[in-house]
Amino acid sequence: MAELLPQLQHICGEANVLFDQDLSAYERDWRGREQGRALCVVRPGSTAEVAAVVKACAAAGVPMVPQGGNTGLVMGSTPDDSGREVVLSLQRMNKVRQMDAANATVTVEAGCLLERLQQVADDAGFLFPLSLASEGSCTLGGNLASNAGGTQVLRYGNTRDLCLGLEVVTAQGEVWHGLSGLRKDNTGLDLRNLFIGSEGTLGVITAATLKLFPKPAAQRTAWAAVPSVQAAVDLLGLSQQQLGSGLTGFEMMGQVALGLVAKHMPQLNIPLWQDAPYGVLLELSDTDSEDHAHAQLERLLEAALTQGCVSDAVVAQSLAQSKELWHVRESISMAQAAEGLNIKHDIALPVSAIPTFVTYTDALLAQQLPGVRMVNFGHLGDGNLHYNVQCPLNTDAAVFLQTHEAQVNQWVYEAVKSFGGTISAEHGIGCLKADTLPHYKDPVALAMMRSIKQALDPKNLMNPGRMLGQG
Amino acid sequence: MAELLPQLQHICGEANVLFDQDLSAYERDWRGREQGRALCVVRPGSTAEVAAVVKACAAAGVPMVPQGGNTGLVMGSTPDDSGREVVLSLQRMNKVRQMDAANATVTVEAGCLLERLQQVADDAGFLFPLSLASEGSCTLGGNLASNAGGTQVLRYGNTRDLCLGLEVVTAQGEVWHGLSGLRKDNTGLDLRNLFIGSEGTLGVITAATLKLFPKPAAQRTAWAAVPSVQAAVDLLGLSQQQLGSGLTGFEMMGQVALGLVAKHMPQLNIPLWQDAPYGVLLELSDTDSEDHAHAQLERLLEAALTQGCVSDAVVAQSLAQSKELWHVRESISMAQAAEGLNIKHDIALPVSAIPTFVTYTDALLAQQLPGVRMVNFGHLGDGNLHYNVQCPLNTDAAVFLQTHEAQVNQWVYEAVKSFGGTISAEHGIGCLKADTLPHYKDPVALAMMRSIKQALDPKNLMNPGRMLGQG
Repeated sequence: MAELLPQLQHICGEANVLFDQDLSAYERDWRGREQGRALCVVRPGSTAEVAAVVKACAAAGVPMVPQGGNTGLVMGSTPDDSGREVVLSLQRMNKVRQMDAANATVTVEAGCLLERLQQVADDAGFLFPLSLASEGSCTLGGNLASNAGGTQVLRYGNTRDLCLGLEVVTAQGEVWHGLSGLRKDNTGLDLRNLFIGSEGTLGVITAATLKLFPKPAAQRTAWAAVPSVQAAVDLLGLSQQQLGSGLTGFEMMGQVALGLVAKHMPQLNIPLWQDAPYGVLLELSDTDSEDHAHAQLERLLEAALTQGCVSDAVVAQSLAQSKELWHVRESISMAQAAEGLNIKHDIALPVSAIPTFVTYTDALLAQQLPGVRMVNFGHLGDGNLHYNVQCPLNTDAAVFLQTHEAQVNQWVYEAVKSFGGTISAEHGIGCLKADTLPHYKDPVALAMMRSIKQALDPKNLMNPGRMLGQG
Repeated sequence: MAELLPQLQHICGEANVLFDQDLSAYERDWRGREQGRALCVVRPGSTAEVAAVVKACAAAGVPMVPQGGNTGLVMGSTPDDSGREVVLSLQRMNKVRQMDAANATVTVEAGCLLERLQQVADDAGFLFPLSLASEGSCTLGGNLASNAGGTQVLRYGNTRDLCLGLEVVTAQGEVWHGLSGLRKDNTGLDLRNLFIGSEGTLGVITAATLKLFPKPAAQRTAWAAVPSVQAAVDLLGLSQQQLGSGLTGFEMMGQVALGLVAKHMPQLNIPLWQDAPYGVLLELSDTDSEDHAHAQLERLLEAALTQGCVSDAVVAQSLAQSKELWHVRESISMAQAAEGLNIKHDIALPVSAIPTFVTYTDALLAQQLPGVRMVNFGHLGDGNLHYNVQCPLNTDAAVFLQTHEAQVNQWVYEAVKSFGGTISAEHGIGCLKADTLPHYKDPVALAMMRSIKQALDPKNLMNPGRMLGQG
C-alpha cells in the first residue's frame, strides 16, 4: 500500500492525487450528515487513466469510492472514516465527446455537469430532459450510477431510460467499450442497465451515450385544487387519457406543505391553497402551438370540474406565470428547512394504492404522535411521494427526530411494503439505507444481487459496503 | 435421470409431461430450420410447479429449455438433438392476474398470448403497444425473454421499456417475487432488465407487470416518396421535431422491396413507388382529434416538400386507407417469400450512419455479386433495417444461398460493425448467432456476461449454449 500513492501520481500526475490538504469537499456527504477520511483523492483525466488507477488499487487491495459531483443523498459517494479508501473522482473527465444530431444522441464523459449537458443539447436544438435540484453540481456519471429521477420522469423516464450506451472500467481495470447510439440491440445480457443504478459497486462509468428529444413547441402549466388524494389520482388518469405523452408534469402538494411555503415565502402567490386539502401542478408540452396547448388544458380542466375531481383551477397565461407556479412547487424543500428538521421519506407506490396508503399512514402517525404534521408532496404521476414528517408545533425538532426517527421510519416503511411500494424511489441506497434494505427487499433478489457483485468484483473493492452491505 | 419423469409427472400431473407422442410443435423452430429431440415437454400450471420442476431437473443435472409460443427466429427456444433436454413450456400459465386501471398496469403470466393481452388492454380502455407479426402465437414470457421489438418501438420502446416488474424462478428453483407496479424503484441492482432479454439462460420468467398507455384520440398515416436514404433520415428528423412523441411509426421501404410487393400482390395499391428509390410510411397518433392529426401531417409534409427531402406524398383520408398503407408495408415479407429464399439480416445502426452504410454495403455487394438485389426496408425510426439480399434474377436461390450466405453475412456484419451497429437488433442470438456473437461483441462485455451466467446458473442448466455459447 505504501507504494500506491507514487503509482497513482505516476498515472495521473502529482497535481491530481490529493492527500495533504483539506479534502472535505470529497469526504463530506451532500447533506452534511457525516465526514469520512480518504487515503487520497485521485482525479484521472482519461479512461485509460481510470483503468490504470483501478488496476493499481486492485493490485494493492485498496477499496475505491467512485465520485461525481458528490451531491448524492444517501451517502453513497463518500469514503468511510478508515482512511483506507481512495476517492476516485471523475470531475476532470467532463468532455462532450460527440453530438450526433441526426441520431438524436450525445456522448459525454462521466464528469460532465448535468446543467452543461442541458445547455449543449439546447444549443443543438434539442431537449435533454433530466432535471434535478442539484443540476448545477451533479454529474452525468453520478446521475447514471444512481439512476436519478427528477421532475420529468412522467414523460421521459428515469436516467436509465435516457441512456443508450456506456463506457465502463471494470473492477479489474478492463475497459468495456459499450458506447452505442443504438435504439435496438439484442446481443446478450443487458449490462448497460446493470451498471446504471449500481451506485459504483460494480465498476466505474466513464462515459455514456444519451438520448436527446425534440423541444416542445409550447409548454403550459395549470394549477388545480383537488378535494382529496383520490381526486388527484382521478385527475391524473383523466389527464393521461386526454393529453397522452403531452403531460410532462404532475405534482401533488398537500395543504401543510403549501402552508409552509406561504409562511416562509410570503412574497409567493400560491393559487387556491386555502380552499382545498391538495393542490396539483400540471404541465403540458405541446408539439403544435401555445394556443393549442392552452385549449387542450382548458378542455381537460372543464372535464375535471364536471367530474368533480377538481374544485377550482387556473391556467397560467404566460411562460412567466408557469415559472411562478413551478417556483411554488420547488420552494417546498426550502420552506421545510426554514421550519426546521423533519423526517424524510423518498417512497414510491403504485398510483392506485396511494390514496389508501396516505389515509392509513396519516392516521397511524396522528394516533401515535398527536399533532405531527405531514408534509406530503411529490411526483404523483410517478407514484413518488416525499412523505415527510414534521414535529408538532412548538416542539424541539432535533429532540423529536432523536426520539422518534427510527420508529417513524419503521412505521412508514412497513406501510409502504404492505401497499406494494419501495423505500427508495429515486435516491438509492448508499450507506444510509444499506442496513435497512434487507428488511424490505425480496431475499431471492438480494441473494442474486450479491452473487452478481461477487462475480464482477470478487475482491469487493468497488464501493464496498454501499447498497448491498457487507453481504 | 431415470427418476426424473415420474417426479415431473408427480409435480404437474401425467397429462402435462409429454414424451411418447409427436412433439414437433415444441421441438421444431418457427422458421423450420431444425428439429431437435426433447427428453420430454413439461407444462407446469403455476409458479410453484415451475419452481418444483426446476428443482427436480437441477437435482438430476438435466438441462432445461424454457419455451413460450416457440415463435422465436433465432432457435433459442427449441431443444438440441441430444434427447437430454427438457422443454419447459409456459403455455398453461396464461392468466391475466390483475388489471390496475388507476396505475395503468396489468399483471399477466408468462404464457399469456400477446394478442390476448392487447385485447384485455383494449377492453379496459388502454393501449398495450407491443405489436409483432407473430402476435397471435407468441407469449409475453417469450417477448420478455427476447426483448421483442416490433412496429411501435419508435414511440413506446422495446419490450423491456414496457415492463415494470417480473416474477422469476431462478436456476436453483427459488422464486423471486419481483412483480411491481412501480415507475421508480432504486433499491439495488437492476435484475428486471437483466432477465429481460436473457433468452432463458438465467432462469424462467413466470409473470410480469406491464405498462398500459392511453389510447390515442386519432391515428393518421401518410406515405412519402423520398429521393434517397439521406432524405429519409432528414424527413425523420423533421417529423420528430414537428410531431414529437406523436410520431408512432416511421418505416422506410426500398424500391426493390416495393417492386416485389407489386409483382406478387398486384391487387395492392402502392403509392408513388415507381417515382422514387425509397418510400416512407409515417404514422401520427394524436391526442386531440382526426382533424388535428390531419392538419399536423399536412403541415409536416409541406415543410418536407419545401426542404426537398420529400418529392411527393399522400395522406390517408380514412382509417381504411391507413390500413391499406400498413398492409403494403406488412406484405414485404410475404412478397420476399414468394420471390424465393433470401439472406436476411436484422441489423441496427445509429440513424446518422445509415445513409453511408447503405451506400457502402450496396456497392460492395453489387461489386462482389453482380446483379444481386437489395431488399432493404425496416424501422428507420429505430435505426433497424431488414437488410436482405436476394439472388440475381434468373438464378437458383437455394444454390445462391448455399454458395454465398456465409460470405454475405460476413461482409454485411463487418460493415455493420465498422459503422457502429449491431448484428441483432430485435431477434436475439439463440443458437443461430451464438457462434457469430464473439466476433462482433466487445470481449470485456462478453466476459462479464459469462461471469454473470456462471454466478446465477453455476451448473449451466438454463438453456445452455444459447446466446453465450458454451463459454
